[in-house]
Amino acid sequence: GYAKLDHHRKIRKGYGEVILCEGKSTEHLINIFKHFADNETDVLGTRASKEQYEKVREIIDVEYDELSKILKLKRSKYENLGEIAICTGGTSDIPVAEEAAQTAEFFGSKVLRIYDVGVAGIHRLISKIDQISRTNCIIAVAGMEGALPGVIAGMVDKPVIAVPTSVGYGANFKGVSSLLTMLNSCAEGIAVVNIDNGFGAGYIANQINRLVVGSIGK
Amino acid sequence: GYAKLDHHRKIRKGYGEVILCEGKSTEHLINIFKHFADNETDVLGTRASKEQYEKVREIIDVEYDELSKILKLKRSKYENLGEIAICTGGTSDIPVAEEAAQTAEFFGSKVLRIYDVGVAGIHRLISKIDQISRTNCIIAVAGMEGALPGVIAGMVDKPVIAVPTSVGYGANFKGVSSLLTMLNSCAEGIAVVNIDNGFGAGYIANQINRLVVGSIGK
Amino acid sequence: GYAKLDHHRKIRKGYGEVILCEGKSTEHLINIFKHFADNETDVLGTRASKEQYEKVREIIDVEYDELSKILKLKRSKYENLGEIAICTGGTSDIPVAEEAAQTAEFFGSKVLRIYDVGVAGIHRLISKIDQISRTNCIIAVAGMEGALPGVIAGMVDKPVIAVPTSVGYGANFKGVSSLLTMLNSCAEGIAVVNIDNGFGAGYIANQINRLVVGSIGK
Amino acid sequence: GYAKLDHHRKIRKGYGEVILCEGKSTEHLINIFKHFADNETDVLGTRASKEQYEKVREIIDVEYDELSKILKLKRSKYENLGEIAICTGGTSDIPVAEEAAQTAEFFGSKVLRIYDVGVAGIHRLISKIDQISRTNCIIAVAGMEGALPGVIAGMVDKPVIAVPTSVGYGANFKGVSSLLTMLNSCAEGIAVVNIDNGFGAGYIANQINRLVVGSIGK
Amino acid sequence: GYAKLDHHRKIRKGYGEVILCEGKSTEHLINIFKHFADNETDVLGTRASKEQYEKVREIIDVEYDELSKILKLKRSKYENLGEIAICTGGTSDIPVAEEAAQTAEFFGSKVLRIYDVGVAGIHRLISKIDQISRTNCIIAVAGMEGALPGVIAGMVDKPVIAVPTSVGYGANFKGVSSLLTMLNSCAEGIAVVNIDNGFGAGYIANQINRLVVGSIGK
Amino acid sequence: GYAKLDHHRKIRKGYGEVILCEGKSTEHLINIFKHFADNETDVLGTRASKEQYEKVREIIDVEYDELSKILKLKRSKYENLGEIAICTGGTSDIPVAEEAAQTAEFFGSKVLRIYDVGVAGIHRLISKIDQISRTNCIIAVAGMEGALPGVIAGMVDKPVIAVPTSVGYGANFKGVSSLLTMLNSCAEGIAVVNIDNGFGAGYIANQINRLVVGSIGK
Amino acid sequence: GYAKLDHHRKIRKGYGEVILCEGKSTEHLINIFKHFADNETDVLGTRASKEQYEKVREIIDVEYDELSKILKLKRSKYENLGEIAICTGGTSDIPVAEEAAQTAEFFGSKVLRIYDVGVAGIHRLISKIDQISRTNCIIAVAGMEGALPGVIAGMVDKPVIAVPTSVGYGANFKGVSSLLTMLNSCAEGIAVVNIDNGFGAGYIANQINRLVVGSIGK
Amino acid sequence: GYAKLDHHRKIRKGYGEVILCEGKSTEHLINIFKHFADNETDVLGTRASKEQYEKVREIIDVEYDELSKILKLKRSKYENLGEIAICTGGTSDIPVAEEAAQTAEFFGSKVLRIYDVGVAGIHRLISKIDQISRTNCIIAVAGMEGALPGVIAGMVDKPVIAVPTSVGYGANFKGVSSLLTMLNSCAEGIAVVNIDNGFGAGYIANQINRLVVGSIGK
Ligand SMILES: Nc1ncnc2c1ncn2[C@@H]1O[C@H](COP(=O)(O)O)[C@@H](O)[C@H]1O
Ligand SMILES: Nc1ncnc2c1ncn2[C@@H]1O[C@H](COP(=O)(O)O)[C@@H](O)[C@H]1O
Ligand SMILES: Nc1ncnc2c1ncn2[C@@H]1O[C@H](COP(=O)(O)O)[C@@H](O)[C@H]1O
Ligand SMILES: Nc1ncnc2c1ncn2[C@@H]1O[C@H](COP(=O)(O)O)[C@@H](O)[C@H]1O
Ligand SMILES: [Mg+2]
Ligand SMILES: [Mg+2]
Ligand SMILES: [Mg+2]
Ligand SMILES: [Mg+2]
Ligand SMILES: [Mg+2]
Ligand SMILES: [Mg+2]
Ligand SMILES: [Mg+2]
Ligand SMILES: [Mg+2]
Repeated sequence: GYAKLDHHRKIRKGYGEVILCEGKSTEHLINIFKHFADNETDVLGTRASKEQYEKVREIIDVEYDELSKILKLKRSKYENLGEIAICTGGTSDIPVAEEAAQTAEFFGSKVLRIYDVGVAGIHRLISKIDQISRTNCIIAVAGMEGALPGVIAGMVDKPVIAVPTSVGYGANFKGVSSLLTMLNSCAEGIAVVNIDNGFGAGYIANQINRLVVGSIGK
Repeated sequence: GYAKLDHHRKIRKGYGEVILCEGKSTEHLINIFKHFADNETDVLGTRASKEQYEKVREIIDVEYDELSKILKLKRSKYENLGEIAICTGGTSDIPVAEEAAQTAEFFGSKVLRIYDVGVAGIHRLISKIDQISRTNCIIAVAGMEGALPGVIAGMVDKPVIAVPTSVGYGANFKGVSSLLTMLNSCAEGIAVVNIDNGFGAGYIANQINRLVVGSIGK
Repeated sequence: GYAKLDHHRKIRKGYGEVILCEGKSTEHLINIFKHFADNETDVLGTRASKEQYEKVREIIDVEYDELSKILKLKRSKYENLGEIAICTGGTSDIPVAEEAAQTAEFFGSKVLRIYDVGVAGIHRLISKIDQISRTNCIIAVAGMEGALPGVIAGMVDKPVIAVPTSVGYGANFKGVSSLLTMLNSCAEGIAVVNIDNGFGAGYIANQINRLVVGSIGK
Repeated sequence: GYAKLDHHRKIRKGYGEVILCEGKSTEHLINIFKHFADNETDVLGTRASKEQYEKVREIIDVEYDELSKILKLKRSKYENLGEIAICTGGTSDIPVAEEAAQTAEFFGSKVLRIYDVGVAGIHRLISKIDQISRTNCIIAVAGMEGALPGVIAGMVDKPVIAVPTSVGYGANFKGVSSLLTMLNSCAEGIAVVNIDNGFGAGYIANQINRLVVGSIGK
Repeated sequence: GYAKLDHHRKIRKGYGEVILCEGKSTEHLINIFKHFADNETDVLGTRASKEQYEKVREIIDVEYDELSKILKLKRSKYENLGEIAICTGGTSDIPVAEEAAQTAEFFGSKVLRIYDVGVAGIHRLISKIDQISRTNCIIAVAGMEGALPGVIAGMVDKPVIAVPTSVGYGANFKGVSSLLTMLNSCAEGIAVVNIDNGFGAGYIANQINRLVVGSIGK
Repeated sequence: GYAKLDHHRKIRKGYGEVILCEGKSTEHLINIFKHFADNETDVLGTRASKEQYEKVREIIDVEYDELSKILKLKRSKYENLGEIAICTGGTSDIPVAEEAAQTAEFFGSKVLRIYDVGVAGIHRLISKIDQISRTNCIIAVAGMEGALPGVIAGMVDKPVIAVPTSVGYGANFKGVSSLLTMLNSCAEGIAVVNIDNGFGAGYIANQINRLVVGSIGK
Repeated sequence: GYAKLDHHRKIRKGYGEVILCEGKSTEHLINIFKHFADNETDVLGTRASKEQYEKVREIIDVEYDELSKILKLKRSKYENLGEIAICTGGTSDIPVAEEAAQTAEFFGSKVLRIYDVGVAGIHRLISKIDQISRTNCIIAVAGMEGALPGVIAGMVDKPVIAVPTSVGYGANFKGVSSLLTMLNSCAEGIAVVNIDNGFGAGYIANQINRLVVGSIGK
Repeated sequence: GYAKLDHHRKIRKGYGEVILCEGKSTEHLINIFKHFADNETDVLGTRASKEQYEKVREIIDVEYDELSKILKLKRSKYENLGEIAICTGGTSDIPVAEEAAQTAEFFGSKVLRIYDVGVAGIHRLISKIDQISRTNCIIAVAGMEGALPGVIAGMVDKPVIAVPTSVGYGANFKGVSSLLTMLNSCAEGIAVVNIDNGFGAGYIANQINRLVVGSIGK
């Protein structure tokens, strides 16, 4: 029966709720954060502007990170276990990578950050491959041509979550080029999330990692 | 150094090699299969036509499945461990689902098949949710509107690999509609592979499952 | 002959005239509103900016709603009859939903608002289905993946008017993803309007509802 | 609770089940038709090929119409009530129009067919407008430029369901041009279905008509 | 030989030179206008901003029209002969129509302006058809669905130059919808220019009209 | 009043009727041709297959040209007056050019054919420019990059009707590349018809030419 | 003056003429080959079908290669000088690579073929890099994700001509994905030709190589 | 082995490093420039804003050009040898052309600038062809229809690097129209870089030129 879904919702609450802040009114955001604060539920807000943060913190004691635009309320305490690697092609991809990293950390993973190892200078990546291949899951973030995830997946036998970014110009079409590259990769072991969706990548990479090392509270 | 990559290749060989048969000449295919047969390596060929199969089996003792178009040479013996669920929206999505299923089985997973549970009649899906949520990873295959993976991910807290299919017509644009639906899902825990890429989904789902239950031979 | 068309125009005037305010000069808008005010015709202006409202109300006594951007002049009095349901996937879709709701109310329908029942947490929707299915027509408004109308149409046997919104980012392409999802729905009983076109949905839903309960003044 | 959905399914069965035949194996199709024949349920199959028909009728006594590609099993008897109008721009749009017409007739409506009244010679349409405007709902089917639904909706105050067809060449892009025209119509009272989706239009037009004249069996 | 081209250039100069002002630096624009002023050549500048006008007129005595964004220097005197009609679907299309109208007037045609006669209320257009059909060439300007040129070409046997505008939203895609409608028109006697290219339409319509009534100076 | 339209139709009949044969059943085609033959009206059928021709001529004495796919019934006799030029970029564009040429000839123009003068070897074109510039209207037909119309319009001060063809491969996208080139031409005096629409170009070029030299029968 | 162009054509003739055979009638092809044979000019025909070859060789003694679809008439004798490297990602890209290779050889270059070194197994490529970097120009041919040219350009400081192929499926969109990848490459020293345009790549690579080693006959 | 790559990097350093400044934080930019300044390496920064320049020069003595947006640090001294030609269609394309020109000069080439010679007035180009054809490589920069590179390549037998610009409006789609024109050119000897990518063109043109005249320091 459907009742089980509610049960499932309760279990999932252990991890906390997620809010897409972009496009929400401040008033609405404050209500949501207050509601969860009252229910002792952790909240992860994504794509929050600095203005939204400033309004919300007048009422509730939230934390904000300008780079990743993550606005969070985290009160529960548990140890982060297991590691995921997050790689970027360039330095302009770092905001998206940080959205992924901080999402994964919020939900219980440790993160190994390997930034600016794009394929135009592939020796930088090769020197890190051993380290990367020891983690449970890899997030590869890249704009422009978007070749990084495919190259990593060709060298490492762990699941690779590919994140195209809108970094680029002209025939990049705001990330479409990278997205298509990643969807068409010849390497085995890649799955893709939406353009600039660091959150989505961090969430599923954490799911995978926590399945491997054991769920929280088990 | 790079030598480690070779080491990694050898380890991966335990799982076998993968060949995209579509677009290859029969002669070339036979050479590949013979080469691996001589090296006692398992081979998984995808998108093989019946004609290719008939030519190859004249030389080597391969198996072929018409529905999934998988052509394989499997000699190593080990127990499949851990389960993944594979769901489809309609019956026309089954060939792609079978490509995924047989790929995952080839590489060491057990597969729970839940076909024809599309969101146009959502009670069919709901009655199976408990069973689905007990597996380690879910592959959701859907054409036309492609809403299935999002609905599943909203109910289950396991990683969902979404596979858009080219089933549909008109503004479906040979799977683009489903692909976009899946990339834009609001539910947490989804990553997407290329249109009709059952193989890719089966491969990464198996990677995840085998990480959870332990790699082959460990 | 063509004369009948004019006759038809006169009948329709009972419902009032509709103006797309976006892209019109204030001067032009004021003229239109004045003209209809003089002819005792109701006017519904859509996509009006606050600036346009402020200029127009200096001359004529119009009403404005900031959320839906509807600017109206309504003087005729008649009872709203029959109900349509308006559902949204998220809270960011509410402005479009309100454009639909207030259009339908302007032309003579009652509106049941069921907001934030997106498919990522489908139990919220299921608990409202009975109530929804008792109305004469349903408007389903959704951005991102746009799966809501298809899921509703699968559960309810009333006409569903689907409104894609431009809410989302990346491969959402300003609403194209939702639009395609809705056009490709496998569920029976869906028709779609333009991205963000709450007005169009409200208009046709009211037409349907008023056909069922009887036209105004009959 | 969810049980009501099942209840609703049972009610809906009164109308019969719908099958998209395209892409289904003959074996699978025969099973479906047999299953429903055993349960005394009417079945409407769409996009069926002549080959599929010939195989199915060897087993079950189905009817087939080559123009609309509708394959049906209809045993229940009830009077068709209320009328919908179906208009086409050209003669090449007739197969799609017939899919709509026969779907609407299958589910309980009468159909007024007004074919080949495209806007390139608008006087043909104008001479029929009075007749069209007396029906409960209009389906307007057009390829190439797709202007017909907008012109009709500008003259008639009844809901118009617009069906773009893939008739055309070059920058028509297999119906995309017509689809966009229809979504962008300035006239009030239009909603759109997928390219070539006569079935979808016929289904929702029948829903609307039957709401107006009373459901079957009420 | 190629020398004839120069000869042709000289003849064409009788009509004056054309400058696309958008994207040019003020300094560059002033140079161009000064150069032609010194050579007693008329100049038509299109897509000029008010800022550009204000800078240029400090140096040269140019005229500017804010609606059409035309900046011009016209000293030669000759009678405008023959008439073209310029029709628009809505009032938002008027700036583009005025660019066309003022271009045609600049180069020697008389212009009949018939604005706001879109197909959503087709009787407005029909009442003007006789007048329109007496001109030598028709420019039909329309956004959103873009059906106007096709409807006019169906009623009038004169060449119709169709101008799609970027007026609209959502699936209009900044004029692509109107452009495709116009390219796919079933009516005879239509050719299309770029989105918002009033200049191009005015230029070729004037060419056609002047061929009919005789070239300037002949 | 609308009656005038009928009057206009009668006048236009002098030129004959046009039928798009592609997608029409033989039976339907035969009916149309018979109807017009009975009414002594000329008929121009476009995009007719050889099969259609063979069936139709069993009943009526029609003429067919395999290259242009034009199927015609022409009985009225009048002198063709005034000349249009038709240029192509390559030899593969000739079928489309012939559709244009034979359409223009059917309706009363003389045609100067200048084929295979594409811009990749521009001296071939330049040597013909004088001849071309003495006609009343130019049709420029080109595939691949589609630059021909712009280059001609830059050298000649007569209206240029541009016809993109689907000749090409890869990023030509079946004529989209040529279409865009033509719509974006910087040269003055170009308007564009649909991809491969030789008929449309021939029709409007003839309209222009006949306006200049005087209508038929005046 | 323009005469110089003719001079240039004569010089270029030294290299021979190029014909795109696809879409040309056999009759037309034979004429072209005969004409050049009579003028002692070499001819390179691309995209020729076997049928075309068989017809042409009945008349003239041409050579044909089925893999590259090149049909040629080469009589002049000179030494090929300087080397270009041609690399492919997979074996399915070989026909396009061979079109490039044989074009370059036809016009005077030596070719180093390095096939099947795609980035999914990057060590295969790395082991060849020294050899590749000693040539004068590199052609990198790749389908699916199209990452090969970028990776090569990152390792080698010679001009890289990138050729996207239509090899792939789904969101590859017949080569669009590879094309975009290559246009967006972050590596320095890449320029791109049309999808599947091996000829274009071979031609320009030969131009570059011959500039370095000296033109033919100098 | 991979060590050779490092060796190659050292050699390439002779030419200097390249930085894409757009999207980088000032802090990050300053670090990069300081690092290279300390290592006596030249640096070429592209797409730098004036603000970035002003911040960087507070710390390091860099040069900036507002037109091309190039920010550079050049200390090594060597003679520029060999010439490339850079042509533009219009004056609005000059910023992109300057990015190309200054890149080529930075890396060791002389540049012949031939601006504003678009095909709408082709005699301007023809008069310069001899001069252009004496250089080692040509960069052709064009927006709108983008026909310039094809016309040049048809007249000159040197490699042409085509640069589409985003100059234009409407169906230009921010440079897509020009990009497609260039990819589809029928002329021999063209390869294309990304929209507005003057840097990429300048880099590869310099590579070609320096190969012909000899590398720096050889
Ligand atoms: N940055 C993001 N990108 C995509 N989905 C998100 C993002 N942030 C939150 N979400 C999802 O959107 C849902 C929240 O939507 P809402 O209820 O509108 O806040 C959550 O269930 C998340 O799974
Ligand atoms: N021609 C059609 N176009 C779109 N949807 C259809 C069509 N025919 C049937 N359907 C829908 O597709 C569903 C049947 O899918 P299936 O179970 O695969 O036969 C039904 O619920 C119908 O609503
Ligand atoms: N609004 C416009 N749209 C398209 N083309 C234009 C426009 N205005 C001027 N042109 C053309 O662009 C050329 C002028 O370009 P330019 O030399 O850059 O000023 C002229 O030859 C005109 O044909
Ligand atoms: N495979 C090809 N792809 C692109 N262009 C080609 C190809 N083969 C030949 N061409 C070019 O097309 C022109 C020949 O066109 P045509 O005169 O139609 O044979 C030649 O000048 C070649 O530059
Ligand atoms: Mg891997
Ligand atoms: Mg989930
Ligand atoms: Mg329903
Ligand atoms: Mg209406
Ligand atoms: Mg007409
Ligand atoms: Mg001209
Ligand atoms: Mg390089
Ligand atoms: Mg050349």
